[in-house]
Amino acid sequence: MRRIHVIGIGAGDPEHLTLQAVNAMRDTDVFFLLGKGEEKQELIDLRQEMLATHAREGHRVVEARDPDRDRTPARYASEIDQWRRARADIYEALIRDELGEDGRGAFLVWGDPALYDSTLAILEEVLGRGEVAFEYTVVPGVSSVSTLAARHRVGLNRVGRPFQVTTGRRLAEGWPADVDDVVVMLDARHAFSLLPAEERAELDIYWGAYLGTPDELLVSGPLDEVADEIEHVRSTARDRKGWIMDTYLLRRRDTAEPASEGTGGGKA
Amino acid sequence: MRRIHVIGIGAGDPEHLTLQAVNAMRDTDVFFLLGKGEEKQELIDLRQEMLATHAREGHRVVEARDPDRDRTPARYASEIDQWRRARADIYEALIRDELGEDGRGAFLVWGDPALYDSTLAILEEVLGRGEVAFEYTVVPGVSSVSTLAARHRVGLNRVGRPFQVTTGRRLAEGWPADVDDVVVMLDARHAFSLLPAEERAELDIYWGAYLGTPDELLVSGPLDEVADEIEHVRSTARDRKGWIMDTYLLRRRDTAEPASEGTGGGKA
Ligand SMILES: C[S@@+](CC[C@H](N)C(=O)[O-])C[C@H]1O[C@@H](n2cnc3c(N)ncnc32)[C@H](O)[C@@H]1O
Ligand SMILES: C[S@@+](CC[C@H](N)C(=O)[O-])C[C@H]1O[C@@H](n2cnc3c(N)ncnc32)[C@H](O)[C@@H]1O
Repeated sequence: MRRIHVIGIGAGDPEHLTLQAVNAMRDTDVFFLLGKGEEKQELIDLRQEMLATHAREGHRVVEARDPDRDRTPARYASEIDQWRRARADIYEALIRDELGEDGRGAFLVWGDPALYDSTLAILEEVLGRGEVAFEYTVVPGVSSVSTLAARHRVGLNRVGRPFQVTTGRRLAEGWPADVDDVVVMLDARHAFSLLPAEERAELDIYWGAYLGTPDELLVSGPLDEVADEIEHVRSTARDRKGWIMDTYLLRRRDTAEPASEGTGGGKA
Repeated sequence: MRRIHVIGIGAGDPEHLTLQAVNAMRDTDVFFLLGKGEEKQELIDLRQEMLATHAREGHRVVEARDPDRDRTPARYASEIDQWRRARADIYEALIRDELGEDGRGAFLVWGDPALYDSTLAILEEVLGRGEVAFEYTVVPGVSSVSTLAARHRVGLNRVGRPFQVTTGRRLAEGWPADVDDVVVMLDARHAFSLLPAEERAELDIYWGAYLGTPDELLVSGPLDEVADEIEHVRSTARDRKGWIMDTYLLRRRDTAEPASEGTGGGKA
C-alpha cells in the first residue's frame, strides 16, 4: 500500500520541527512540493534546508505547479471548488505516477496542517474518487499562531474565555460577536484599520511577520498607538523583500478588571 | 542573569516535542515541576521519560505544590486572582531560591503554553513585582487542539471561514454567534449535550481523549448518532483510569454546500 505523510513543518523556524516530523521525513521516499509558481525563494530554500538536514539519502523531490486560481472571482465558492478539483487531479497523478506500490510519499505543510491549508481536503477528494489507493497520516505542527503567541509571550485566550481565529476578509466585515480575542490570518490589507474608531480604541494588538525566520518582525501595544507603526513596518518590509506573511492577535481591553468585581470597580 | 524557558512539550506524545524544546531542555539546569497534588501518575511518568531522554546530565528537578483552588467559588474572578497571587509567591520563591544568579530554569507546559495555561501570566506577575530579576523565553508547542485535528485528519477551519476555541463552561451557555466551527476544551461534563436538540441535529463532532498517548480514544460522526457512544466511552475510560482529558471540535453542517450556490441549491 502507498503511504503518505502530511507533515506540519512549523511556520518558519526549522527548530519548530517535531521529532515526529523528523521521523516522518526520514521515512519518506518521495517529497511532493507544490508551488504556485510564486513561492518565495527564501521559503523554498528553507524547506530545502530542512530536507537536506533530515531526509534520508536517496530521497526524491518531485515538484509540481499548483493550478492558478482567480483570486477575485464573481462566485468565490464555486471557483474554490473548481480549483480544488484541479489540484486533486494533480495530486492524484503525482501519487499514482511517482510513488511505487509500497512507496512512502510526503507533503510538507507550513505551520500546522489543520490551519487554513487545503492539503487534507484535496487528499480526501483524491481518496473519494477511488482511482488510486493510499493510506495517509497527519503530523501536527507548530502553527504561525502558536509562534506569534510565543514570541509575544502572551496567551491566546484569557482565563476561562474563548478566542476566535479568522481571516482578514472576515474581520473587514466587522468584529465577531461573543469574543474579545481574535487572531487574524490571511490578511492582505491590514483589515484592523477598517474597524470603527470606537472599536479600535478598545483594542490591543500583538502583530508578527516572518515569524520564526531571521527577518521576524514584532510590534505590540494599544492599536491606536501602534497601528501607524505596523502599517509602516509592514509596507517597508514588503517593499524590501517583495512579499510579506503576517498574523496578529487583537485583544479587547477589559473595561473593568475581573479583580475589581464587587470591590467598587464598575463595569462600563 | 537568571534565564527561564517556558517549554511547550506537546499534549501527550513525546514525539511531539520540537527540536527547539529538546534544545531548551538540554540548556536547563533546574526544572520546576508544579503539581496540584492530583496530577495523574501517568502524566508524571510521561514527563519524567522526556526528561530522562532529553535533559542533560546533572540537571535538577524541583517539585512544588500548586496552591489549592476552590473550584466553585461564589466570586469566580476574584478567587482566580487570589489563586494566581498564591502561585506567583511560589514561582518567585522557586526562581529566587533554586536558581543561581546565572542559572537556567524551565517550566514544562503540556501542549502549547498559549492555550489555557497560566504559566506566562504568573511569570509576568512575578516580574512585575520586581523582587527577582530574570529573562524568559517561550517555546511554542503542539497543542491538544492540533493533535485532535491531526488524528481526525480534519482542518479546524473551513475555507475562508473562522473558528472559535472555547471552554465547556462557555459552550453550556449556548452556541457562540458568528461561527460554525467550535473547539471545546476544559469540559468536565460533555457540555454538547446541553445544546438545544435542533442545534445538536446540525452538528458533527470530532472527539478525542488522552490524545497522543497509548490510551488515545477517537470518535467522530453526526453528534446525534455518536453522542451516546462518546458519553459511554468517556465514562468507561474515566472509571477505568480514574481521570480523563478530552477535547472536541463541533462543526455545523452546511445546509447548502458552497458548490451549489447559484445552481439551484437553496440555503435553509
Ligand atoms: C494559508 S495560511 C497557512 C497557515 C499555516 N498552516 C499555519 O499553521 O500557520 C497562511 C497564513 O498564515 C499566516 N502565517 C503563516 N506563516 C507565517 C509566518 N511565518 N509569520 C507570520 N504569519 C504567518 C499568515 O497569516 C498567512 O497569511
Ligand atoms: C489547562 S488546558 C491546557 C491545554 C494545553 N496547553 C494545550 O495546548 O493543549 C487542559 C485542557 O486541554 C485539553 N487537553 C490537553 N491535553 C489533552 C490530551 N492529551 N487529550 C485530549 N485533550 C487534552 C483538555 O480539554 C483539557 O481539559
